[in-house]
Amino acid sequence: MSTVKRISILGSTGSIGKNTLDIVARNRGQLQVVSLASRSDVEGIVRQAREHKPKLVALFDEEAASDAENSLAGSGISVLSGTEGILEASTISEADTVVSAIVGAAGVMPTFAAVEAGKDVALANKEALVAAGSIITNEALRTGARILPIDSEHSAVFQAIMGQDAAGVQRVILTASGGPFFKKSQDFLDGVTPEMALDHPRWKMGPKVTVDSATMMNKGLEVIEAHWLFGVPVERIEVVVHPQSIIHSMVEFIDGSTLAQMGIADMRLPIAFALGYPDRMSLPFDPLDLTAGGKLEFFEPDLDFFPCLKLAYKALRRGGGFPAIMNAANEVAVEVFLNGQLPFTGIPQVVAHVMETAPEVQDRNLAEIMRGDNWARKAARDYIASSEENG
Amino acid sequence: MSTVKRISILGSTGSIGKNTLDIVARNRGQLQVVSLASRSDVEGIVRQAREHKPKLVALFDEEAASDAENSLAGSGISVLSGTEGILEASTISEADTVVSAIVGAAGVMPTFAAVEAGKDVALANKEALVAAGSIITNEALRTGARILPIDSEHSAVFQAIMGQDAAGVQRVILTASGGPFFKKSQDFLDGVTPEMALDHPRWKMGPKVTVDSATMMNKGLEVIEAHWLFGVPVERIEVVVHPQSIIHSMVEFIDGSTLAQMGIADMRLPIAFALGYPDRMSLPFDPLDLTAGGKLEFFEPDLDFFPCLKLAYKALRRGGGFPAIMNAANEVAVEVFLNGQLPFTGIPQVVAHVMETAPEVQDRNLAEIMRGDNWARKAARDYIASSEENG
Repeated sequence: MSTVKRISILGSTGSIGKNTLDIVARNRGQLQVVSLASRSDVEGIVRQAREHKPKLVALFDEEAASDAENSLAGSGISVLSGTEGILEASTISEADTVVSAIVGAAGVMPTFAAVEAGKDVALANKEALVAAGSIITNEALRTGARILPIDSEHSAVFQAIMGQDAAGVQRVILTASGGPFFKKSQDFLDGVTPEMALDHPRWKMGPKVTVDSATMMNKGLEVIEAHWLFGVPVERIEVVVHPQSIIHSMVEFIDGSTLAQMGIADMRLPIAFALGYPDRMSLPFDPLDLTAGGKLEFFEPDLDFFPCLKLAYKALRRGGGFPAIMNAANEVAVEVFLNGQLPFTGIPQVVAHVMETAPEVQDRNLAEIMRGDNWARKAARDYIASSEENG
Repeated sequence: MSTVKRISILGSTGSIGKNTLDIVARNRGQLQVVSLASRSDVEGIVRQAREHKPKLVALFDEEAASDAENSLAGSGISVLSGTEGILEASTISEADTVVSAIVGAAGVMPTFAAVEAGKDVALANKEALVAAGSIITNEALRTGARILPIDSEHSAVFQAIMGQDAAGVQRVILTASGGPFFKKSQDFLDGVTPEMALDHPRWKMGPKVTVDSATMMNKGLEVIEAHWLFGVPVERIEVVVHPQSIIHSMVEFIDGSTLAQMGIADMRLPIAFALGYPDRMSLPFDPLDLTAGGKLEFFEPDLDFFPCLKLAYKALRRGGGFPAIMNAANEVAVEVFLNGQLPFTGIPQVVAHVMETAPEVQDRNLAEIMRGDNWARKAARDYIASSEENG
């Protein structure tokens, strides 16, 4: 890169945020942080602010913002709070690229705001495209904002598709590790605890994403995200279980040729790719050694064993606000599961119930999406409560 | 493609030539044959000429040309002979793309002539770049001719590198099936007959290339070819044995990301890619099914068991005319082996001896290369004759 790229990090104290700052620290001449945003992690964001000296820090939580303001007094760093603070961090004029790494539907509005402001968005938040893919991709077309995926799967597809004519794309094939419960029995699933679901074999991630990986809802969200990122219809997006997580995803072309992107399972690789794009940064990690004794295996996903993946395909086929509804129901179910108040196998049951009982919801604007999201959250909570009463 | 691409096929009656004509027959609206050339296969080229109606047919062998002329009398197809005939076929003004598929050093001059005439060259002949890589790539820069590899390995690298900044390339990793003798014992190698060497597990190819695959000299030639095609220094070109031949080669980038091209083992795929470039043609072959039960494995090549590969690296490191000398010695050794007059393990011995005793040869022009080639052929024959006397 010839000039310094200035970045805002939304969700800087989470797993993606920390990895992003690690990349920044290794590439000071190329990357500079101008704003950081977190929900409520005062200690974390203050430490990051002292090291990276952004112009602005935003905390959603008012009290946390007040504490951070005291800690950073005299530093020259502005501290803002609430939705306005997060939106200011995501649209700050100094930023070239916004890293959107807030977890869940809370990341939709800030992502839209960054796209609306014409920023390049390095996107880790899946829900923005899952819930509002049509709205956000249309806005990106309008403002010229580029959406650069940080998910390892979509980064792989993006890299495989670079320089290729879109008309030549036949299928997008997303790989899945299969999560911690691949090839386990149905009986086993009934006894899965939060601790078991949080022990992912390949990737270190936050709790929500890790549980989504265990149910394979994560892969379902990625199918929807791939649809919007690459403009590929649902029937041409496939999922293949690849337990070694060496191939991060693939693109098949109309001539039968397939391009696969591979690498070690470290989120810093796709983060660095999104931040450096279109250049690649030299990274100090060991290169992949395919001869180290492993082998690469591939299996079809078992959609009966992982109903969440089937539900995500269904939501994408129905379209409109259905992916947003599915996503909201899943967020509630995962939260209740992590609190120990819903069995693991209850997650797809909650999502399926909410989808079955949902009204028609459109996706013409963010307000419609948000209404659908709110309805689904309430429906999910009501269903869980009534199941508890009946159970 | 908006317009019809007109192609010349040098070596039309060989394995690559026939596969090229199969692609043409499937894509009549996009591809049209304007000339065909063969060494001496009258029956084959006459049949091809009747089907594809080129403007010109060339046979190197004078008698064969005379027979073909009689067979094609009244068809309106010109028949030429000798070196002039082959060169006319390779530079015919109507051709947009020349498929260079003559086997061995005999393909060097026609390939150079096509590049000199500014044609795009779909290159299957390895020896052109092995023997005269510097000369041909410089000429291509001068005339604007594009060299589009047909070898599955180089097509894979070409596809993986498309749209990527060359500055980001860290290593080119060529895959090798390992050939029919992968993991066999040294004792076994001593008893290898031509029939055994011609029984390749993955690819259907002509006899010379098949024997080169068995000795892994084929991979050595490909290392040299990759150096010239992609401008990557020898120390950044690696070979990995991948017995399943699903991944056709890979490119590793400076950020640790690797792009791999995969597909079924059918030469028509890289041929169609080279002919259609930059567009992809829709081909009716079954797509790759990675979940069909196989697995992908990777091993380091055993350079002591396959000394030809080591010799090729050595020739590329020495540079100048050494790759041409190595290639010529190998052509002689393979020919004598196929005639049953040299043991399989004699092939690398002949090549090593010729390289050790070779004078310094430069590669400033084709005449120097050809002198080196001629010297090496004589040296190889002399060495084989003296070994027979002593043995």
